[in-house]
Amino acid sequence: MSLTLADLGENQILEWLEKKFKPSRDVKMGIGEDCAVVRIGREEVTLKTDSMVEGRHFLREHPSRWVGWKAMARPLSDFAAVGAEPKWAMIAISLPRNLTRSYFLGLYGGVKRCAEEFGVEIVGGETSECPDRIVMSVVVVGQGGNCRRKSSRENDAIVVTGELGGSYKTGKHLRFRPRIREAKWLTRNYEITSMMDISDGLAIDLPRLVVREDFGFCVSLERIPVRKGFTLEAALKDGEDYELLFTVSPRDYESLEEGWKKMFPQIALTKIGYVRRNGSKSFSLVGYQHFVD
Amino acid sequence: MSLTLADLGENQILEWLEKKFKPSRDVKMGIGEDCAVVRIGREEVTLKTDSMVEGRHFLREHPSRWVGWKAMARPLSDFAAVGAEPKWAMIAISLPRNLTRSYFLGLYGGVKRCAEEFGVEIVGGETSECPDRIVMSVVVVGQGGNCRRKSSRENDAIVVTGELGGSYKTGKHLRFRPRIREAKWLTRNYEITSMMDISDGLAIDLPRLVVREDFGFCVSLERIPVRKGFTLEAALKDGEDYELLFTVSPRDYESLEEGWKKMFPQIALTKIGYVRRNGSKSFSLVGYQHFVD
Repeated sequence: MSLTLADLGENQILEWLEKKFKPSRDVKMGIGEDCAVVRIGREEVTLKTDSMVEGRHFLREHPSRWVGWKAMARPLSDFAAVGAEPKWAMIAISLPRNLTRSYFLGLYGGVKRCAEEFGVEIVGGETSECPDRIVMSVVVVGQGGNCRRKSSRENDAIVVTGELGGSYKTGKHLRFRPRIREAKWLTRNYEITSMMDISDGLAIDLPRLVVREDFGFCVSLERIPVRKGFTLEAALKDGEDYELLFTVSPRDYESLEEGWKKMFPQIALTKIGYVRRNGSKSFSLVGYQHFVD
Repeated sequence: MSLTLADLGENQILEWLEKKFKPSRDVKMGIGEDCAVVRIGREEVTLKTDSMVEGRHFLREHPSRWVGWKAMARPLSDFAAVGAEPKWAMIAISLPRNLTRSYFLGLYGGVKRCAEEFGVEIVGGETSECPDRIVMSVVVVGQGGNCRRKSSRENDAIVVTGELGGSYKTGKHLRFRPRIREAKWLTRNYEITSMMDISDGLAIDLPRLVVREDFGFCVSLERIPVRKGFTLEAALKDGEDYELLFTVSPRDYESLEEGWKKMFPQIALTKIGYVRRNGSKSFSLVGYQHFVD
């Protein structure tokens, strides 16, 4: 019997890819981070590509404007995760030929609205046919960004923006605003030791951020900012929160919290725990992972 | 009854996109060209994204190594079309969870081999699930390239590399070598007034290159380099040739032809006609167009 991708799981696939594609010295950030950062001539350029599959990331009955918005917002959330500034985008879209013109216009309208909202210009793309479902992939190109995963230090505070859980049920997964502005403010004013965006749920993403051989996390479950009307389990497992998850020295955290309240009074900021030498390596509740039941 | 994309056709969709996404002054080349060229800081950066859909651009029974090769070679062919130098790539792939590990390894192996062959490094990507079929999208980033479509001058010679037709039946569509090296040589040594790669067939692509309000083309059908064993119709309509189609002043063409024979003795080069003020606007035989029967 031959092994399938379901047998492997997403983490193993990623590990394999990291081994297979070893970065050269012109790659500042590569596979395994939220964006790639590469040297092009005299500039460092930040790159991200992200795909959305109908039935998986959205349904045909969702308003196409919001589907378009989400397709652009997802890679922008990765730009936020590394603290980068997005500038250009390209859209590759494969879709059924019986799709209506109005659906198509809505889709591109949503893409465009989100791009404009965050100062991004669409400069290219491609359409092709896919009989069964819509698959969209959006490329974002820009500059800046040096926040990695797994670069936290012992005793750093673990911090999360906004509220977690229920993103799918509340429609947040379609209409969320990528935390570009917030991430820029954080990285300009504080030494953010590691950062990512929460897409698969805190239970899966936090280990990706802070678990190394020598470190783990120590989190107070009661501090996790659960969205009203949802359970802790939902906050850990639902995913698609597109909130920032980052670490910062505990000393810096106090002034950061004060500054945040002035800058972004409408967005929650929560210190949920610390990076510890003998911290946990995983939550007992496990979130959503592609290719694994 | 609402209009579908099949009613619109690819050319109309493209026209609509060009209108909707008007380029700013930092865009040197945008929608409607084979690549985008944008300003990032002090550099001009060349961008392309291209998608391949299983059942449309390849079949499951094709060797996965060659499917991977093709996925990378297609956007590289667009880089050749504008005379640009590729440097970085990202792979977004959506695939069924029951895909075997060995298929997956073959796919990435092919992508990697093609990338290395042309000096391209893979720096990121993404995998997600798509239940029915594989959809791959490859982003290539690099520098240079200033060959546009539709910038030919009256009386320019129309030139094509290689042989046309039968790409699918002979397997060339999987194994072709993008004309990166040849395009670089052409654009460095001659004033190429317009260029593109032939992906939808000469009958569709030539009008895209030279038809403007005031110009058309004048082509000798008997000069079209038909692949041995195939018909003129196949050469015009089959598509997926991934050959260069370009225009150059008739005076330059003579020395270009001589130089070409020395540099690339194994690759045919054919002057098939001229750009004329009263030239044709289309072939009577029509090639393959997405979304149009």
